[in-house]
Amino acid sequence: MLEKLTPEQIKDCTKSELNVLCDEIRAIIFDTVTKCGGHLASNLGAVESTVAMFYVFDFPNDKVIFDVGHQCYPYKLLSGRLERFSTLRQSGGISGFPKRTESVYDAYDTGHAGTSVSAAIGLAKARDLLNEERYVIAYIGDGSFNNGLIYEALSSLKILNTKILIVLNDNGMSISPTVGGMYDIISQIKENGRSENIKLLESFGLTYIGVKNGNDLDEMLDAMAEAKEKLDGNSVLLHIVTKKGKGYEFSEEHPTDTHGVPPVGSAKQKEYSEVLGETLCNLAEKDEKITVVSAAMKEALGLSDFFKNYPERAFDVGICEENASVLCVSMAAGGLKPYYAIYSTFLQRAFDEIIHDVCAQDMPVTFCIDRAGISGADGETHQGVFDLSYLSLIPNLTIATPKDTEELTKLLQFSATYPHPLAIRYPRAGKVLFAGDGKEISLGKWEYLHQSADKNAKVTVLAAGERCLIIAMKILQNLQAQGLDFDVVNARFIKPLDEELLKGLQSKHVVTLEDNMLLGGFGSMVCTWLNARDKDCKVKNFAYRDEFIPQGSIAELQQEFGVNCKEIEEYIQSVLV
Amino acid sequence: MLEKLTPEQIKDCTKSELNVLCDEIRAIIFDTVTKCGGHLASNLGAVESTVAMFYVFDFPNDKVIFDVGHQCYPYKLLSGRLERFSTLRQSGGISGFPKRTESVYDAYDTGHAGTSVSAAIGLAKARDLLNEERYVIAYIGDGSFNNGLIYEALSSLKILNTKILIVLNDNGMSISPTVGGMYDIISQIKENGRSENIKLLESFGLTYIGVKNGNDLDEMLDAMAEAKEKLDGNSVLLHIVTKKGKGYEFSEEHPTDTHGVPPVGSAKQKEYSEVLGETLCNLAEKDEKITVVSAAMKEALGLSDFFKNYPERAFDVGICEENASVLCVSMAAGGLKPYYAIYSTFLQRAFDEIIHDVCAQDMPVTFCIDRAGISGADGETHQGVFDLSYLSLIPNLTIATPKDTEELTKLLQFSATYPHPLAIRYPRAGKVLFAGDGKEISLGKWEYLHQSADKNAKVTVLAAGERCLIIAMKILQNLQAQGLDFDVVNARFIKPLDEELLKGLQSKHVVTLEDNMLLGGFGSMVCTWLNARDKDCKVKNFAYRDEFIPQGSIAELQQEFGVNCKEIEEYIQSVLV
Repeated sequence: MLEKLTPEQIKDCTKSELNVLCDEIRAIIFDTVTKCGGHLASNLGAVESTVAMFYVFDFPNDKVIFDVGHQCYPYKLLSGRLERFSTLRQSGGISGFPKRTESVYDAYDTGHAGTSVSAAIGLAKARDLLNEERYVIAYIGDGSFNNGLIYEALSSLKILNTKILIVLNDNGMSISPTVGGMYDIISQIKENGRSENIKLLESFGLTYIGVKNGNDLDEMLDAMAEAKEKLDGNSVLLHIVTKKGKGYEFSEEHPTDTHGVPPVGSAKQKEYSEVLGETLCNLAEKDEKITVVSAAMKEALGLSDFFKNYPERAFDVGICEENASVLCVSMAAGGLKPYYAIYSTFLQRAFDEIIHDVCAQDMPVTFCIDRAGISGADGETHQGVFDLSYLSLIPNLTIATPKDTEELTKLLQFSATYPHPLAIRYPRAGKVLFAGDGKEISLGKWEYLHQSADKNAKVTVLAAGERCLIIAMKILQNLQAQGLDFDVVNARFIKPLDEELLKGLQSKHVVTLEDNMLLGGFGSMVCTWLNARDKDCKVKNFAYRDEFIPQGSIAELQQEFGVNCKEIEEYIQSVLV
Repeated sequence: MLEKLTPEQIKDCTKSELNVLCDEIRAIIFDTVTKCGGHLASNLGAVESTVAMFYVFDFPNDKVIFDVGHQCYPYKLLSGRLERFSTLRQSGGISGFPKRTESVYDAYDTGHAGTSVSAAIGLAKARDLLNEERYVIAYIGDGSFNNGLIYEALSSLKILNTKILIVLNDNGMSISPTVGGMYDIISQIKENGRSENIKLLESFGLTYIGVKNGNDLDEMLDAMAEAKEKLDGNSVLLHIVTKKGKGYEFSEEHPTDTHGVPPVGSAKQKEYSEVLGETLCNLAEKDEKITVVSAAMKEALGLSDFFKNYPERAFDVGICEENASVLCVSMAAGGLKPYYAIYSTFLQRAFDEIIHDVCAQDMPVTFCIDRAGISGADGETHQGVFDLSYLSLIPNLTIATPKDTEELTKLLQFSATYPHPLAIRYPRAGKVLFAGDGKEISLGKWEYLHQSADKNAKVTVLAAGERCLIIAMKILQNLQAQGLDFDVVNARFIKPLDEELLKGLQSKHVVTLEDNMLLGGFGSMVCTWLNARDKDCKVKNFAYRDEFIPQGSIAELQQEFGVNCKEIEEYIQSVLV
């Protein structure tokens, strides 16, 4: 029935029709996600509450902001995006996250945790000042609810003196099981209605409404209507208990495995995260000072075994990227050897702590930065293309990127005795192994992966990380077939640059390749450095141009945004001939 | 008596001796701060509690982390730094903040708000894992207590399963009067001992102890001893109510005015913040959509009048830089025109929100970034030297820096109709006014402040902002006296660069000057840009080298770290002759 249903018509449905609608939505999500990949369990749990929102509120005049956005698929299906839903997460297709440019029903773009309550308060305040009439809703999971930004927002609700509805979808899970003090407080309300905890919420300016089964449509419809009514008086926290993965048995039992699901049939390759986990376990066996910190992502980062084998030295602090950073710094100050594993895009949240705590104090914290470079289907909010730029501007920080998974192991071994801040960044999939020069890893030293037979090669390619080295070596193969040749360097340290190698360069042309923005990135550093030394060579930078990079396949996006194999090959060819 | 007292001897003092000690500390702080500048009121309020900590705990084996650090002067005086205290905040002297490199008594460097509880937990966990014996204390003001990072830390206290003491020094003020939901909760305990609020703290794993007068030494000594005892069982929150500025009447009555005090006798100059406040008031009069958001700094940012004149459109959300950012974005999404005024160094805390919320959604938020460039006496944690680098890597963001206070007004007028994200950065003091080319501000357009009589000048200096233009014009004056001449450009837009001007450059030498790091900064952008266009000219970048910049006078630090007038002059002279 979804096919013929406009958003407005949902209000005219009977309850049994709405129940049918819920089943239909669940089936479409399951089918689509198993084909396209995406977030399964969280969306399945959000079906009834979303139907209830449509039944009670008037979108798009009313506004809802989905925190993180992992729960917006039912909303997308109900707001006229059924037909295009099969393009989920594909190039040019429906985004896996709310996207203002995609639909007037999407009020605010999300992707990172904890922004929804601030966003709702700001929209509500704009409504008040512009004398508009609408309801504004923040829809948030319990995992995000532990993020510090949520508390900053709740603390400002009274200051801004406005009214919002917060739907807290409590499935007892963030990506990892939810942890921490505030979750206890919510749990206590859920379990025994502790009135002092409800009063706490009231002191933030929130009226509390609880729903025992947020996957029961009747309960949800009543509660949503009650919430709307109570919004006349005060802001409302509607706390609904749902089952992540509701309706699909495998997903219900394994919500972490099914949080982000790759398309069925995609090849399983060795990932950098697996190598990270294995290597850290090996290092931790020899060094009792090693600790590991994660912000709600331990499985995806390859750390499950570490958490199993070294529970007393492994800490998952929930979606609290800043706290995780400072914990690492102070553990280091206290004599431990902490590793902080995190996705590139989420590390942005800890930028100030990297400067102010880690690097200004020159503490031996090692950042293991996964999903670096273009990450693909998640789109703008998840691309890991800024890290080389925002990290390289920070004094005292060493930055490395391995040429392959084996070199990740070597860099981690290097890190074990390295007494300063270190960031190691790598993509998800390891695809190839490169034969290197066989030398030990040494701070700031690069290696030649290929040296031209002509000792004075006209072109030297400096490539940062596996993806770029694959491109460089492929081009080398193509051009060698034409009798041309050039040097290829594994620029495994982004900072410090290998100044000795750069000084000794004989090539008239230096080409830089990186899976990062041009501005402030590796190529820009090389260019500025060579310029300052009056080096008589021409630098050509290949990196991403100054735009946000949408969803798509990694290879396509690399090509489109500036790391274009064909152009690079043509450039090298043009200067060689 | 302080002169002869070792930290260990404090334990042997009688109570009356300790009271004398408190008076002495207060007098020294008052005298020193009125000479050297620094934080007066917050430190005066912390005297008795600090003496009590020394009486009860064993520093430096026990560790205390001062949140932000505005309350560490009594601690410094008691830990052997009396003699050097007269060098407070001066080049090579005692830091105004805790500094590990300064003393073994300083356990953890601070400067930005909210890090102390995470830091204490990490140090305590290191103690546990390394089987050491010590107490770890986070000493924090009520203003910082509203920062999101504190909640992330409190939520992780149980996860890390360790014990710390939190001393919450509640003077009812952050820099601006403290605001928000959590402060209400603490206030309620203070005012009527609301037990549910105490229970809330217990659910975080904290035992609550309250002290009604934290400036009463007897009370403080008893409470501190009780806290130490209770730490055997659980973590403890010791909530002490103090008077900011205690002991100095003027300071007690005007705690905001005396928060940061300039040395007596320093010349009063027109500041950029005054111009910001005036201009925003004028703009707001004409445009009802204009709103202003501040994170606990409205007075220092020049916004007092705006808050007075437009209370319904002015929001101080406390020390919550991230929430402030997202509020601005969502206000913009809701149709308002928000301005977010903040110090350069604190904006680092909102880095992810600038990318993920402001710029990915291309929202017309204007950042008014004060204290940009070297800020001087506050040292490493407060230098505003990273902003051009961390902002310029973000797509969709326009970055400007005015040549003088009049141009700040013009840039703000430009911002009023500019429909995209905009960052305007400027230092504290406005020193001179420059005669420009008289043209209207236009996106990405620079202006010549001086063009050489020889139309094909050999050197063009591109200077970003007032401080650098002062240097450039001074050098011009010097070299003109020798019959030499060159062009000087006010590079008022850092992004986008004035590509037309750059393309048309005839000079063989381009010199860039900026009050920012070299890496990823303005000069690096110019260099990379010109290189990509095969422009036949030599670029020379003057900017700060890749090190943290300590406290000192602004002029000295500029010279020392890379914006060295003499070197710049010699360079220009060498290529002109």
